[in-house]
Amino acid sequence: MKALWDRNKRITAYHEAGHALVAYYTTDSPPIKKASVKSWGPALGHVSFQFPRSKWLMLQTKSQLLAQMDIAMAGRVAEEMVFGPDNITKGASMDLRMANNVASCMVTEYGMSKKLGLQVLIGGPFGTMGATPETRQTVEQEVRKLLQESYDRASRMLRMYRVEHERLALALLEHQSLTAEEVKMVIRGEELKHKRKDREE
Amino acid sequence: MKALWDRNKRITAYHEAGHALVAYYTTDSPPIKKASVKSWGPALGHVSFQFPRSKWLMLQTKSQLLAQMDIAMAGRVAEEMVFGPDNITKGASMDLRMANNVASCMVTEYGMSKKLGLQVLIGGPFGTMGATPETRQTVEQEVRKLLQESYDRASRMLRMYRVEHERLALALLEHQSLTAEEVKMVIRGEELKHKRKDREE
Amino acid sequence: MKALWDRNKRITAYHEAGHALVAYYTTDSPPIKKASVKSWGPALGHVSFQFPRSKWLMLQTKSQLLAQMDIAMAGRVAEEMVFGPDNITKGASMDLRMANNVASCMVTEYGMSKKLGLQVLIGGPFGTMGATPETRQTVEQEVRKLLQESYDRASRMLRMYRVEHERLALALLEHQSLTAEEVKMVIRGEELKHKRKDREE
Amino acid sequence: MKALWDRNKRITAYHEAGHALVAYYTTDSPPIKKASVKSWGPALGHVSFQFPRSKWLMLQTKSQLLAQMDIAMAGRVAEEMVFGPDNITKGASMDLRMANNVASCMVTEYGMSKKLGLQVLIGGPFGTMGATPETRQTVEQEVRKLLQESYDRASRMLRMYRVEHERLALALLEHQSLTAEEVKMVIRGEELKHKRKDREE
Amino acid sequence: MKALWDRNKRITAYHEAGHALVAYYTTDSPPIKKASVKSWGPALGHVSFQFPRSKWLMLQTKSQLLAQMDIAMAGRVAEEMVFGPDNITKGASMDLRMANNVASCMVTEYGMSKKLGLQVLIGGPFGTMGATPETRQTVEQEVRKLLQESYDRASRMLRMYRVEHERLALALLEHQSLTAEEVKMVIRGEELKHKRKDREE
Amino acid sequence: MKALWDRNKRITAYHEAGHALVAYYTTDSPPIKKASVKSWGPALGHVSFQFPRSKWLMLQTKSQLLAQMDIAMAGRVAEEMVFGPDNITKGASMDLRMANNVASCMVTEYGMSKKLGLQVLIGGPFGTMGATPETRQTVEQEVRKLLQESYDRASRMLRMYRVEHERLALALLEHQSLTAEEVKMVIRGEELKHKRKDREE
Repeated sequence: MKALWDRNKRITAYHEAGHALVAYYTTDSPPIKKASVKSWGPALGHVSFQFPRSKWLMLQTKSQLLAQMDIAMAGRVAEEMVFGPDNITKGASMDLRMANNVASCMVTEYGMSKKLGLQVLIGGPFGTMGATPETRQTVEQEVRKLLQESYDRASRMLRMYRVEHERLALALLEHQSLTAEEVKMVIRGEELKHKRKDREE
Repeated sequence: MKALWDRNKRITAYHEAGHALVAYYTTDSPPIKKASVKSWGPALGHVSFQFPRSKWLMLQTKSQLLAQMDIAMAGRVAEEMVFGPDNITKGASMDLRMANNVASCMVTEYGMSKKLGLQVLIGGPFGTMGATPETRQTVEQEVRKLLQESYDRASRMLRMYRVEHERLALALLEHQSLTAEEVKMVIRGEELKHKRKDREE
Repeated sequence: MKALWDRNKRITAYHEAGHALVAYYTTDSPPIKKASVKSWGPALGHVSFQFPRSKWLMLQTKSQLLAQMDIAMAGRVAEEMVFGPDNITKGASMDLRMANNVASCMVTEYGMSKKLGLQVLIGGPFGTMGATPETRQTVEQEVRKLLQESYDRASRMLRMYRVEHERLALALLEHQSLTAEEVKMVIRGEELKHKRKDREE
Repeated sequence: MKALWDRNKRITAYHEAGHALVAYYTTDSPPIKKASVKSWGPALGHVSFQFPRSKWLMLQTKSQLLAQMDIAMAGRVAEEMVFGPDNITKGASMDLRMANNVASCMVTEYGMSKKLGLQVLIGGPFGTMGATPETRQTVEQEVRKLLQESYDRASRMLRMYRVEHERLALALLEHQSLTAEEVKMVIRGEELKHKRKDREE
Repeated sequence: MKALWDRNKRITAYHEAGHALVAYYTTDSPPIKKASVKSWGPALGHVSFQFPRSKWLMLQTKSQLLAQMDIAMAGRVAEEMVFGPDNITKGASMDLRMANNVASCMVTEYGMSKKLGLQVLIGGPFGTMGATPETRQTVEQEVRKLLQESYDRASRMLRMYRVEHERLALALLEHQSLTAEEVKMVIRGEELKHKRKDREE
Repeated sequence: MKALWDRNKRITAYHEAGHALVAYYTTDSPPIKKASVKSWGPALGHVSFQFPRSKWLMLQTKSQLLAQMDIAMAGRVAEEMVFGPDNITKGASMDLRMANNVASCMVTEYGMSKKLGLQVLIGGPFGTMGATPETRQTVEQEVRKLLQESYDRASRMLRMYRVEHERLALALLEHQSLTAEEVKMVIRGEELKHKRKDREE
């Protein structure tokens, strides 16, 4: 059981470090609040953000929506890079669902796809009649394209900042939880002295 | 947070100014009552109209329905023209939904499409059996055409009255809210002296 | 507001006069009871008929069903002839829905279409299994054909009796409401003296 | 109103006489109990049969099911033969629905169609998954074929016994209602003396 | 009415004798308990089996499932062989439904079809998404093949044991109900002396 | 009845021995707790595992999911190898359903299929719109491929360890139930002396 526990902890650390790292380096990401590998409800870890949800989400731009997708993708990307394709986990399924929802809304509700243009496909008139097969195929292609591009952006970023990702994962394994300030310090390679002290006391 | 707030205010001002401007210059638009960038419920701003809804809406003509679509489109058009295609927001989704509904009703309920003719496709007999794929494809093409034509009309109008749009957006940022009379004055380039005074007092 | 009100009144008068005129000249129409441009519930005017609904409707013949469709179509036809295609209104949508329902029942329930023959498609076994695409396409074609033929009959009749239609619309504008007898008098070009007197008193 | 009433009565008489005549001459028909042109519930007339429903229906043979369809078809056939194709009524829609149901059950539940064979399509496993388009098309073709063949049998019979049909319709108009015995007498051209007397008293 | 009653009794006797005979000669059939032509609920007769349902059904093998289908088919086969194709009855519809369900489960739930293999199509993931048209077509073909092969096996058996089938039907007509032991005696051509006595007393 | 009972016991023993054997030899299988041929609820036997479900299942890797499928397949493989293809039972249907669910989740929810990539098809946006036929076909192909590969792995393993499988089945028949430790001993060919003694006492 101990082995299983350690292995899950390690995977979780690299997964969450992936989210945090991509959030840190992406211009239009909302600012991080905390990264943690303490299990919370059904999740084994999470990264939270600091913003007043209601207003901030209201006017999200296309860039901000893409940033949200990239951060979600980074968890799976990290698993695949560090542990190999046979050890990717079903733990990324909620992230994938979220990224799919954002991509789908951009294409079918926000008029942000060149090919679909200004049509509203969900909750609008075609929610009643059902979009035609041709349109549904275009929707899928556009969503798939957004997902793949997001995955590729997240991959490039994690390869580029491999060292910082490693540091972040190890810091999470050591300290369980990091504030936004601490995430920044770890990424810059600074020591978290105060945390050391806490533990030594 | 301040930066985010200012940015949202600016986007909202240009968005609402777009609605107001197109409403002002479109013959069959209902008369404006007020334009505002004060947030109201989930919306960050709005333009309201002066007419008794029930009767006025009863006999809307084809021209009036098209005017309604153009006004809705103008918000998104303004965002794209002023802030660029990466900064269009999901705030236009309610406008798009409205324009889609109008276009869809014209095609499937009001018998206002040449190609679909007198068929009633929603709430009628084919609501039960489901229209054929061929018909659904024609519906989509007709709706898409109406949406694109509306977007193009709104674009032409906003390019033509770019200066007036700019004035209106700035006035909204300064005063938060404008009456129909004040919208007219701003568009004509007249000073809103009384408002100045209000503020100076 | 006054202008809007007058315009709606005028459109309503020609629309209802259309219904009344086609009902008057169509052999298998039920006898008219009243034509009116007083708003009633959501409608801005209406034409009513004199017959005991339950029994009369029971044995409607094919000719009677076609008459019902022609009368419904006449409202839209009148709008288009008098005010032009940009000023057709959504006020005809209930008429279109009714005509669509009659046409659809003839084809899918009453066995009155050559091509569909004796199949019952709604409420019958295929309500459960869903008719095949081929059959649904034939249904739509038959319904569309019935609608177009009905529209054409109504158009021919309104062009032929253009003068009478004009008289009827003006009488409705003047008197608000006409009985079957008064409709007949107006169509024949007779004066409605008693009504004059009523008003002069 | 009187004219409308008389016309409905006449159509009903020929319609019900059609049912009764085909029931009388078809070997596998259940025995008639009564034919009537008194309105009953929503119907303007009806023909009833004498059999204990539960057991008799249990083992219906293919021939008996076809007889049931032919009797139902005879109402519409009579309308068309006597009053012409423009005066067929929607009053036959319940008959058509019944004939459609019988035909559909034969094809999809009773294994009585060569082409569909032993498949059970409704209420069975394919009620859940939905039959394939190919199968649904075959079902429709088989049902359509059964309906057309039934209509043709009823037509041949009504043409062959045109005189008897006429007699039956007139007797129904005169007496409102006929017992099985009286139907037989009318068909044979015998006088219904007892009924005469009833009326003369 | 008497004639109708006798005819139904005769059809029922041959139908149930069909079930019993095929059950008797099929290796993997469960052992018979009773055959009867006494009506029971909506059915006019039935054959029952002796086994503890819960456990026995749990591990049914492919051969046992095929036996179950053959027994069900035998009723319809008997009707067609003895009374001709125009006199097959709708009384076989429950048998057909049962055979369809078994065949369908073999193909879509038990992984017993070569072509569908190990896919679970009902109650599994494809219950949610709906199997593809290609797969549904394969399912139908496989089910149809299982049904036809079963019908053919039952036909061959009833032709081969025509004499025994005749004896069994006549014994059912005479005695109303036969135990498993009596079924065996009748098939072997032995006299049911004890029953004779019962009746003579 | 005794014969039926013995036969079911034998089939169950080889079926459960199949599960246990593949679980034992598969690297990423969870550790076994017990194998048993005592009937429990509707099942005639079962193999249970030792792990805290909630956390362990949380981060299952692709390898662990494949192991789960192989163990499920092993029951059916064992039946077919030992008793022949005519004697495979419907008892494997729950195993098949489970394997189908795992495969389906990998493809439609966990992003573990090369061809479908990062799309989430169930519970996501396409749960609402329905995936396109092309995508559904790809899903089926991927699921089918995962199932077949799993079946093949289980087959190879059971052929390779045929002797051990035989021993395990016989031990289950003798002792009804085996702990993880006893399963290991039987597979290694060691005697279960303590159990002997238990029985001899």
